[in-house]
Amino acid sequence: MGDADVVLLDFWPSMFGMRVRIALAEKGIGYVYKEQDLLNKTPLLLEMNPIHKKIPVLLHNGKPINESCIIVQYIDETWSDKSSLMPSDPFLRAQARFWADYVDKKVYDASKKTWTLKGEEQEKGKKEFIEILKVLEGQIGEKSYFMGESFGYADIALVTFYSWFYTYETLGNFSIEKECPKLIAWAKRCMQRESVSKTLPDPKKIYDFVVEMRSKFGL
Amino acid sequence: MGDADVVLLDFWPSMFGMRVRIALAEKGIGYVYKEQDLLNKTPLLLEMNPIHKKIPVLLHNGKPINESCIIVQYIDETWSDKSSLMPSDPFLRAQARFWADYVDKKVYDASKKTWTLKGEEQEKGKKEFIEILKVLEGQIGEKSYFMGESFGYADIALVTFYSWFYTYETLGNFSIEKECPKLIAWAKRCMQRESVSKTLPDPKKIYDFVVEMRSKFGL
Repeated sequence: MGDADVVLLDFWPSMFGMRVRIALAEKGIGYVYKEQDLLNKTPLLLEMNPIHKKIPVLLHNGKPINESCIIVQYIDETWSDKSSLMPSDPFLRAQARFWADYVDKKVYDASKKTWTLKGEEQEKGKKEFIEILKVLEGQIGEKSYFMGESFGYADIALVTFYSWFYTYETLGNFSIEKECPKLIAWAKRCMQRESVSKTLPDPKKIYDFVVEMRSKFGL
Repeated sequence: MGDADVVLLDFWPSMFGMRVRIALAEKGIGYVYKEQDLLNKTPLLLEMNPIHKKIPVLLHNGKPINESCIIVQYIDETWSDKSSLMPSDPFLRAQARFWADYVDKKVYDASKKTWTLKGEEQEKGKKEFIEILKVLEGQIGEKSYFMGESFGYADIALVTFYSWFYTYETLGNFSIEKECPKLIAWAKRCMQRESVSKTLPDPKKIYDFVVEMRSKFGL
């Protein structure tokens, strides 16, 4: 199924790829999904993202768009007749961009420390990760979503990490819900949307993937 | 001079702050400039950017916008009746965002290695920095600006570093122009715009500032 003019180069456990899949689902856009082997990159991927050589890449009418947050904005601006992922007010748009940018700058690097490090370094990593999540939780506060009542850009940037929480918690031996109950409530609220629940893989499948990768590469 | 409803918290040698100053100049917006002491941060700065505690901060009608690239987009979208800093086509807009993002991810960290490291590490840093500049030069190619004939968002993201080139070259003992002549030609083209030439400080003033900072902090 899918329009041949929209193609996604992606890798199933990628929280960055998932962002694009959620945005496409929110807009109801059919597309061809091309799973990529990141250990053996295809000539297509290297040609379509020569600078970073990373997934996700969105090909629209053969033209590549790179970097997940930029792709999500592209999708929102190109299929602008469907419900918007961005607030219409420039100040609120700047805020949505600020929080997506905060996620990009902070969450991934800190999340990795919860399961790639050991001992004291891992404890420090877990503490850092929780502190970052608490900042995000504080921003959501009593609202339904980052920007209020509408699910959008900043929610998409963060919610894909939720599918990895089970892995972080199991390998890091800690509970995110205990520390950030409102963040988990927000994530569950996002999961009530089909665009999110149908995109995010089974957390146990991600855990199995990570355990296999750890033993394969000795992480 | 300036409209009291637009206030910029900034620090004169900051390439990030300069981006905002160029965007405001391009749009012809008057503003109150408030120089910040980064070693002794004001309660205003801490209140207006509690997350990153960094300049630049744009205050518009008392509301803060943070992160230089987000501020430039905010300025472009808020004063949209003036000449646009972004292409109107979503694909070209994604490209402009891609290159500004590339600058943000790569240039600053690599540039610091040219003057904060010594010996072999410094040589490696210089090589890395030049490789990044060559990627950017390759993208500009034979065009006047990043996106063609119009000066805009991606140009603003990069050109502010030009005021630091003299410092990198002098302290790193290398020539950027020898390696990237087209990039320097592009920078000089940008400097023909009053918004850029009136914003970028004298490179020798930046050099003196850096030398003083190095001796003060033993970098």
